[in-house]
Amino acid sequence: MTNWKGRDLLGLRDLSRIEIDQVIACTLEYAKGDPQLNEYLLKGKTLLSAFFQPSTRTRLSHEAAMTQLGGRVIGFGDPKMTRAGDFYQESIRDTFGMLEHYADVIVMRHYERGAPHEAAKWSRVPIINAGDGWGEHPTQVLTDLSTVVSKKGAIDGLHFMLVGDGRMRTMHSICYALAKYEARVTFISPSELTIPSVDLDDIQALGGEVEFADDVHDVLPDADVIYMEPVVQADYSASRVERSGDVGITEEAYKINLAKLQKLAKPDAMVLHSLPRMDELATDVDSSKYAAYWDEAAMGVHLKKALLQLILTDGENR
Amino acid sequence: MTNWKGRDLLGLRDLSRIEIDQVIACTLEYAKGDPQLNEYLLKGKTLLSAFFQPSTRTRLSHEAAMTQLGGRVIGFGDPKMTRAGDFYQESIRDTFGMLEHYADVIVMRHYERGAPHEAAKWSRVPIINAGDGWGEHPTQVLTDLSTVVSKKGAIDGLHFMLVGDGRMRTMHSICYALAKYEARVTFISPSELTIPSVDLDDIQALGGEVEFADDVHDVLPDADVIYMEPVVQADYSASRVERSGDVGITEEAYKINLAKLQKLAKPDAMVLHSLPRMDELATDVDSSKYAAYWDEAAMGVHLKKALLQLILTDGENR
Amino acid sequence: MTNWKGRDLLGLRDLSRIEIDQVIACTLEYAKGDPQLNEYLLKGKTLLSAFFQPSTRTRLSHEAAMTQLGGRVIGFGDPKMTRAGDFYQESIRDTFGMLEHYADVIVMRHYERGAPHEAAKWSRVPIINAGDGWGEHPTQVLTDLSTVVSKKGAIDGLHFMLVGDGRMRTMHSICYALAKYEARVTFISPSELTIPSVDLDDIQALGGEVEFADDVHDVLPDADVIYMEPVVQADYSASRVERSGDVGITEEAYKINLAKLQKLAKPDAMVLHSLPRMDELATDVDSSKYAAYWDEAAMGVHLKKALLQLILTDGENR
Repeated sequence: MTNWKGRDLLGLRDLSRIEIDQVIACTLEYAKGDPQLNEYLLKGKTLLSAFFQPSTRTRLSHEAAMTQLGGRVIGFGDPKMTRAGDFYQESIRDTFGMLEHYADVIVMRHYERGAPHEAAKWSRVPIINAGDGWGEHPTQVLTDLSTVVSKKGAIDGLHFMLVGDGRMRTMHSICYALAKYEARVTFISPSELTIPSVDLDDIQALGGEVEFADDVHDVLPDADVIYMEPVVQADYSASRVERSGDVGITEEAYKINLAKLQKLAKPDAMVLHSLPRMDELATDVDSSKYAAYWDEAAMGVHLKKALLQLILTDGENR
Repeated sequence: MTNWKGRDLLGLRDLSRIEIDQVIACTLEYAKGDPQLNEYLLKGKTLLSAFFQPSTRTRLSHEAAMTQLGGRVIGFGDPKMTRAGDFYQESIRDTFGMLEHYADVIVMRHYERGAPHEAAKWSRVPIINAGDGWGEHPTQVLTDLSTVVSKKGAIDGLHFMLVGDGRMRTMHSICYALAKYEARVTFISPSELTIPSVDLDDIQALGGEVEFADDVHDVLPDADVIYMEPVVQADYSASRVERSGDVGITEEAYKINLAKLQKLAKPDAMVLHSLPRMDELATDVDSSKYAAYWDEAAMGVHLKKALLQLILTDGENR
Repeated sequence: MTNWKGRDLLGLRDLSRIEIDQVIACTLEYAKGDPQLNEYLLKGKTLLSAFFQPSTRTRLSHEAAMTQLGGRVIGFGDPKMTRAGDFYQESIRDTFGMLEHYADVIVMRHYERGAPHEAAKWSRVPIINAGDGWGEHPTQVLTDLSTVVSKKGAIDGLHFMLVGDGRMRTMHSICYALAKYEARVTFISPSELTIPSVDLDDIQALGGEVEFADDVHDVLPDADVIYMEPVVQADYSASRVERSGDVGITEEAYKINLAKLQKLAKPDAMVLHSLPRMDELATDVDSSKYAAYWDEAAMGVHLKKALLQLILTDGENR
């Protein structure tokens, strides 16, 4: 069994299939277990949240997981709360050469791709990447895949239809992960939002194959997992709080609603969305059998418990 | 005895007199008790603070209460810390369909009237309304009434002089509550800031009567409880952090100072103010026997302890 | 032995040498001790963080210390999260007449010099000054001095070279503290950023002597402790988050790099910097034997543990 203790989680590109399976298995144990279990597992340990970009789901699910396992949480959820975010523009080294002294593990979100990798160089405590610019978003995708396995039993053999902006970090992370399984991947987006060629090279180097299509209509009949993201030109390299302006209206080719699902989709197809959403996923899907995205919030807490257990303990405490 | 377990607290319009009395009684037990009592009562429970508008008193008193009873707190105190507050303008359903998985109870403040009611539709865990736009502010008014009962022994038979902006949520909540008691209510404000007729209809539907006056001078001699709020045109429908500009100067007819109290008020009249204040309440009252508003901060913590106990336990743990 | 219990820590001007020595001794005990020790020392106690200006190091080190000793933390790290920071511009009295009810000790940073002193007048619980405008920054300087004693064994007999803006609160606090020891102090800054005469009078009233020089080159050969701060015209009276514009480039006379240290400094000279830095301290010093500033982050947590123990307990619990 792989030893996770003390390791960083920077992305899914660098995790083996065995390692991903191990996280999913531990997550699903938490999902079926008594929520009161393990309430002393991380007693005396501190998680530091370092969010240089706003977050609700990712930050709070880490904090819920840590406190439910008996640990403590400190940190910041807004760069303006810190001097690291002010005009000093403190370097990652200076910031993490400090933060490493305050906690046993640090979960960070940053607007720059690669910032967690740089932080991990300087921090003696493990770094969990909670999203780095146009980079990766491993905890989200491990949550997604745990939700898939909980419903489908496995990843091998499934056809994933990915709809969204190919530059987004979740799209990168899920493609890296699926490259390690016998899964079929079809990606759908406007041409200007396709997966950048440099990232596609990385996916292919891992053995992944990505097919491309133009309209959800064409792929829905064969898709097992419908993985949705907003199809808008969000600028992840800027701080979210500073973005504004038109949010656009999604074209029909990239939208899912209940009528399309009922007409075209497999009866057991599942829809995932990390939320928040624009108009690409109609709310009439919310109460249908297809909607698996409500389960992701709960699974997100289980995933973070699993990760924190693996990284902070010898794995014998359960 | 009413069973509070698992219930929302959305407003005082919908609470019976018995329910209000029960909360006040439990609050006053905490007020007289050993602060170290019950330090394990809410062990393993999590409160989530979801403040879409800034708050100091209301948020911190909830968090102090929860942690003093052994519980945990996570959340956000600024919508800009969350993606719910960014350009996605995520729906209440999507936001609370997530937050419900992170906690055992959610306390929320929102700039839109009715937002907590909408959240309660979608959340499986109880919602406490910590102020909703021009709607209600039940925890503040339950704190106020607990302070009144601690000083006066009862609410029945008292004359409440309310001074302030009749559109404000505290004014609505106190009028709804007092409608259930044998209390006399006189409201004083500039005509443009009077209680909106739709809200007055609600108060009257509950059996409440509101008298109106033009100047504190006329009502002070008979008032037992002087309930002050700023008399300014605050725009609760906008986020507070975005407001600015003139804060106005309160007219003499709506101001209280020590000289007026000494000249006109009953010797045992008590002044309440939820603070912060503008110039409607002079600081020369602060050290006088009339000032009961300093007691409200401590009572606020006792009230939140009582609420959390009622909502999260079977009521047998004390 | 001095009784610290229940006392405020407002500045180093008003502490005796014995009191400073006592804090340093307690800090160094924590520095050498088992980090798991004392995990129940502050059980049931609450620290309230009231940061009216952003902070990373100072806020998080207090919160790490408090939680590691078993205590709880509530509060705010951004004035915009509070109504104290909105247009009401609530008075210190009104704000702290509330906050005192929520916690056992309050740590505050404020943009106005003297704000913690004003808060201490109204708060029944102790106030720790975490930086007040152009005033003092006692917890930072106690951390610095603890780091010095840990390396050098004592403060007496050392030559401190201070480089930076003489109006800054750390410069005030370290001069007040060193006035109580047999330490030599040489201050270097551009003439427009020298120590204000009113503050120099205070230092001299405590028995302190400050020498002045124009260039680090002239003082480096004799300096034991090289104490660096940014040499820029930062405006501490404004909220940091509102500052912007040129950050300037430090003149050579106020800069330290590895070449200067290797050519001129004593072999056992130590460089301190509270960070964040501008360009006054070159990063090529970071991995050298001279760099003592990485130790300050860890020492900061030990110092806050010591302070909280002294202020919140009878001192017998260790």
